[in-house]
Amino acid sequence: MAKRIGILTGGGDCPGLNAVIRAVTKHAIISYNWDVIGIEDGFQGLYEKRYQPLTSGSVRGLLVRGGTILGSSNRANPFRYPIKLPDGREEVRDVSEEVLRNLAELELEALVAVGGDGTMQMAQGLLERGARIVGVPKTIDNDLSATDFTFGYQTAVEIATEAVDRLHTTAESHDRIILCEVMGRYAGWIAMAAGLAGGADVILIPEIPYRLERIVSAIEDRKAKGITFSIIVVAEGAKPLGGESAVAVQGDLTRQEKLGGAADRLARELARHFSEHDVRVTVLGHVQRGGTPTAFDRLLGTRYGTGAVDLVAEGKIGQIVALRGNTITSVPIKDACGQLKLVDPRGELARVARHTGVELGA
Amino acid sequence: MAKRIGILTGGGDCPGLNAVIRAVTKHAIISYNWDVIGIEDGFQGLYEKRYQPLTSGSVRGLLVRGGTILGSSNRANPFRYPIKLPDGREEVRDVSEEVLRNLAELELEALVAVGGDGTMQMAQGLLERGARIVGVPKTIDNDLSATDFTFGYQTAVEIATEAVDRLHTTAESHDRIILCEVMGRYAGWIAMAAGLAGGADVILIPEIPYRLERIVSAIEDRKAKGITFSIIVVAEGAKPLGGESAVAVQGDLTRQEKLGGAADRLARELARHFSEHDVRVTVLGHVQRGGTPTAFDRLLGTRYGTGAVDLVAEGKIGQIVALRGNTITSVPIKDACGQLKLVDPRGELARVARHTGVELGA
Amino acid sequence: MAKRIGILTGGGDCPGLNAVIRAVTKHAIISYNWDVIGIEDGFQGLYEKRYQPLTSGSVRGLLVRGGTILGSSNRANPFRYPIKLPDGREEVRDVSEEVLRNLAELELEALVAVGGDGTMQMAQGLLERGARIVGVPKTIDNDLSATDFTFGYQTAVEIATEAVDRLHTTAESHDRIILCEVMGRYAGWIAMAAGLAGGADVILIPEIPYRLERIVSAIEDRKAKGITFSIIVVAEGAKPLGGESAVAVQGDLTRQEKLGGAADRLARELARHFSEHDVRVTVLGHVQRGGTPTAFDRLLGTRYGTGAVDLVAEGKIGQIVALRGNTITSVPIKDACGQLKLVDPRGELARVARHTGVELGA
Amino acid sequence: MAKRIGILTGGGDCPGLNAVIRAVTKHAIISYNWDVIGIEDGFQGLYEKRYQPLTSGSVRGLLVRGGTILGSSNRANPFRYPIKLPDGREEVRDVSEEVLRNLAELELEALVAVGGDGTMQMAQGLLERGARIVGVPKTIDNDLSATDFTFGYQTAVEIATEAVDRLHTTAESHDRIILCEVMGRYAGWIAMAAGLAGGADVILIPEIPYRLERIVSAIEDRKAKGITFSIIVVAEGAKPLGGESAVAVQGDLTRQEKLGGAADRLARELARHFSEHDVRVTVLGHVQRGGTPTAFDRLLGTRYGTGAVDLVAEGKIGQIVALRGNTITSVPIKDACGQLKLVDPRGELARVARHTGVELGA
Repeated sequence: MAKRIGILTGGGDCPGLNAVIRAVTKHAIISYNWDVIGIEDGFQGLYEKRYQPLTSGSVRGLLVRGGTILGSSNRANPFRYPIKLPDGREEVRDVSEEVLRNLAELELEALVAVGGDGTMQMAQGLLERGARIVGVPKTIDNDLSATDFTFGYQTAVEIATEAVDRLHTTAESHDRIILCEVMGRYAGWIAMAAGLAGGADVILIPEIPYRLERIVSAIEDRKAKGITFSIIVVAEGAKPLGGESAVAVQGDLTRQEKLGGAADRLARELARHFSEHDVRVTVLGHVQRGGTPTAFDRLLGTRYGTGAVDLVAEGKIGQIVALRGNTITSVPIKDACGQLKLVDPRGELARVARHTGVELGA
Repeated sequence: MAKRIGILTGGGDCPGLNAVIRAVTKHAIISYNWDVIGIEDGFQGLYEKRYQPLTSGSVRGLLVRGGTILGSSNRANPFRYPIKLPDGREEVRDVSEEVLRNLAELELEALVAVGGDGTMQMAQGLLERGARIVGVPKTIDNDLSATDFTFGYQTAVEIATEAVDRLHTTAESHDRIILCEVMGRYAGWIAMAAGLAGGADVILIPEIPYRLERIVSAIEDRKAKGITFSIIVVAEGAKPLGGESAVAVQGDLTRQEKLGGAADRLARELARHFSEHDVRVTVLGHVQRGGTPTAFDRLLGTRYGTGAVDLVAEGKIGQIVALRGNTITSVPIKDACGQLKLVDPRGELARVARHTGVELGA
Repeated sequence: MAKRIGILTGGGDCPGLNAVIRAVTKHAIISYNWDVIGIEDGFQGLYEKRYQPLTSGSVRGLLVRGGTILGSSNRANPFRYPIKLPDGREEVRDVSEEVLRNLAELELEALVAVGGDGTMQMAQGLLERGARIVGVPKTIDNDLSATDFTFGYQTAVEIATEAVDRLHTTAESHDRIILCEVMGRYAGWIAMAAGLAGGADVILIPEIPYRLERIVSAIEDRKAKGITFSIIVVAEGAKPLGGESAVAVQGDLTRQEKLGGAADRLARELARHFSEHDVRVTVLGHVQRGGTPTAFDRLLGTRYGTGAVDLVAEGKIGQIVALRGNTITSVPIKDACGQLKLVDPRGELARVARHTGVELGA
Repeated sequence: MAKRIGILTGGGDCPGLNAVIRAVTKHAIISYNWDVIGIEDGFQGLYEKRYQPLTSGSVRGLLVRGGTILGSSNRANPFRYPIKLPDGREEVRDVSEEVLRNLAELELEALVAVGGDGTMQMAQGLLERGARIVGVPKTIDNDLSATDFTFGYQTAVEIATEAVDRLHTTAESHDRIILCEVMGRYAGWIAMAAGLAGGADVILIPEIPYRLERIVSAIEDRKAKGITFSIIVVAEGAKPLGGESAVAVQGDLTRQEKLGGAADRLARELARHFSEHDVRVTVLGHVQRGGTPTAFDRLLGTRYGTGAVDLVAEGKIGQIVALRGNTITSVPIKDACGQLKLVDPRGELARVARHTGVELGA
């Protein structure tokens, strides 16, 4: 019987996931003649034994496709699994025994787990109980400290930048203050990159709580110079100094409705200062997560995918692939967990922003 | 002294405005050796005598640029002009006398007024008092009955469709209900075209007030077939049957905050029915109005611009250029005013939608 | 037994083909509960009896996909069919009897034939011998007289225009004469639209044989004004006055090699006049035919597809759908054959070009 | 008098040049209150004393613009300068004395020279004779060993990949072998990245001379599996084993015409093996060099630009900015000269290609 490996994708969407699946499948088949088992909907499919064989045919044409052909699950944590009770309620249980048993039955050389911090913590829990897993890092926010770049991030930046470009011309011609809310709950990498690339006048990120008066003053300074428009890029996790971020109240719908998103909230406050201007809001949302990945992310996903298969072939179980400079390397999964890579408020990017005249709100 | 024409752009932003300005300028100079005067910020610049000469050099490179190099003004109506008083308050006055006098001083063969319904009504008012004006139609919403297509509309549709494309893959991989709010306060052309082109499952437009239960039922039907995601394209002017649209309460900030936008409001209601799904919202906003126009809109703007100069040369004062089929023609400005071209709830597009399985909400 | 219709796609690639297939399938199933049979590789599949059932599932996700899921065949003419002989040679035979018999066996309400002039002539031949066929027009070159617009054309124009945009900045910064060869063997619609939308300085189309000296002189006039770059958009069928087009020698490889493509040939001649400049060539080729269609073309393909099913339902056999203004209508297939819609050298587009300073070469 | 710095851009076009100019200008003005002098057309402007002041206003809106607002010159080498003689002939002279004198007259803190290997060798020559210069690396081919990434490269890769995507669908639907020629005279980075990201079946680069029979055999293997199309990405410097590259004969027009470009030449040979298929060629050319840069390249150009000003402020004359991993650093200009960074035929990228089934021709 041919050896086999498995692959699952966990967590939120990220352009480049299918490139990883394709590369893992192709490399495993072409170089090692392994069978490849795709596990559906992340750890949920492992619990429910929903698998599909992956072949050269089934991964054809995947590079351009957003999403993941395997599906994902945000909530299927083997250690805290939401079970639907007959009465409709949900109960959280530890189903890691079942998951480990199902995994053992598959007789995999290793499972390639593609996911973010949450997925890697689950993977680490299973690793500690004997599972054979290698990791591929995934975060649209690029906030994983183990690697220089994660796939999907650059796609999100390009999409957000194109939106900022479009907002620019209309803001300029029509004297508008336009806010563009981009992703980034805890880390401001997307806002920072898209804001700098798009020539934003103000960039607000979670790492630098903002003072409203600084933003107002930046806009007024521009008006004093005869520049009657301003573009503000706001990470969804941006928050006023001393306040809380809109994403902090997640789940509390009543407060969320009252608070609104980061951009909506700021827009209301700005509308009080600049009544003569039109203040407008664009909320990009999941547009940043979907669709065709950039070439950069397809290539990075492909390199991660082949790298993960190499880890399996070299017996490096428990490792996660990572990019350092131009080199694919690996680190232990446990070292990749729980440490967000944040924008340094005094680091190079923040300096570049300030040195080119961008107001960071503090 | 050379003959001269003037040009101004009024109303909201619309990709293709600069193509019109460029074509008017080039055709006037190349074919007739006229001087061209650009009037800044719409009728405001005419009142304030702010002009700039337009030359071949000043319109170079304009085809790719969004916005309008002349600026615009939404509120500068010569007949109801907002005057700032010394005490900071605003007063609305009829300044049409001054505007007509300034126009007369310019000694133009004609003024080319590029704008939407509002601008054309002002133009008509001035025409009736002796001004020499020809019109170029402009509405991002494509809701002008005098012409088959307005420039800018197709750009908005392409941008909205690309967003829907991106939302599709992420919705599919992650079992989401995603709402995408697009422009269209009174007419649903953008929503209809982008929804059909993007393969939306539900399209909600102002012309067809929706029943929530039909939307819920469409989503449930899909789930029954194993399709666990849905894409809903919502025009900003969409409204529930018997309710009012979010744009109807414009200006009343308190109610607006409570009501939210069309997509936000619907998302809250859907979240009550489909708690197990993530319901997500994208609000494209001014992204649809800005940036590089499509080739289609650049060409249409160019044809309108040369057509407008031809109207002047032929002495067809009071006419507005229009597209009928593949032909540039013209109609009286007064016939182009005040009649919105709406999506017919029983017309071809609505039938195409229903026949390809799209739920229109009623 | 349910009624059934068939569909095949013939001729060259054209973005929007899959939108037609999807719309035909959806409308037939949703509105009439008909079965839908996809015939593979155009008339070749009809001769070889290669069919596939088309269902809602098999047309999912098709709007964004270029190409045709049914495949096509350029050479499979039922009346002059290339048969491979056992000795490897090819013989051309009339296999229309077999094709008609196979068609009869399928017991279709009608066959929807999607294709260009060639496909429609074959369809007409079969119609005259009793086949039940309705047509959907397809030509990337937009040169069909029966309809205002064909799908795919606008996508090609957008792609070509984006290329011209990119060439513009590099030509300008680096004092280059850049030629961009676009599609258009007999009709210059793509060159004309992309050239006008992209701001080309010279546009050469098959309908207007060019004089080299006029092109040289236009470039020199620009230099005299201090403009040291020029962009030339060349249709592949463009030819010098009194000469022949590069596409005319198709099949004669030796002469083709010697002659080169339209842009290569002109580039060599310009290099002799402007040695101090760099003359560069881009040949877009099939890039214009492939990939995701624009929203415009997806919508048009969808409207054509539903319109074709309506023709079948209404018993309008022998008709081809067409767009007139904003209206989907139909004309007899035989009236749609053999008449190319060419750019009128004195028509509106050519005037718009000349009036905005574009050199047309004659 | 305020201190001042100068900036010039040399060599071929590269998206991101304007981002560098903008960042240098903004940082110099905002952080140090320096004046900024733009030197036109590279070293030619320094010789001819053509300068323009750069202000915040003159660099507004530059991020989205391709090309360089300062112009460039490929041939203006101060040490081998082409002088036009009165009789029309050209003579090459050493004008470095004049250039150094002009530079001294400008009394710059330093000159920021943005360019590739050629520009840096000129800069080094001037440095050795006392000029104060800092460098910013520029090469569309990403083949500079001193830095991990150069701006412009990623834009070229994205453009080439989009072309490959489009070719894919048409090749697949219509059974074509399509060759796409991309940039890369000596280094195959663009071909490699675009080929991998676009899912090419064959990638040919200068570093790996190809054997025609391997390409033929790869296409035949695909046909044996029922895959009737193939996509071949060819770097312009690709060459057969034992042969010479098409770019090697540059300047020898007769031989160049006979040889043709890399893709044309290979297409002719493939047409002999696969007569039943259509073999088609796309030559992207300067499309890859022009137009709006990606966000990645705008950000990199901005970081390089601010980094270069920091070098000046820190007195690090003779250094060139460089990217290592995620960090902006610098190296001596002389170390950055004359060493091309080539694709390693046995390195990671080549392995990734082979492991995912790509034929590299040897």
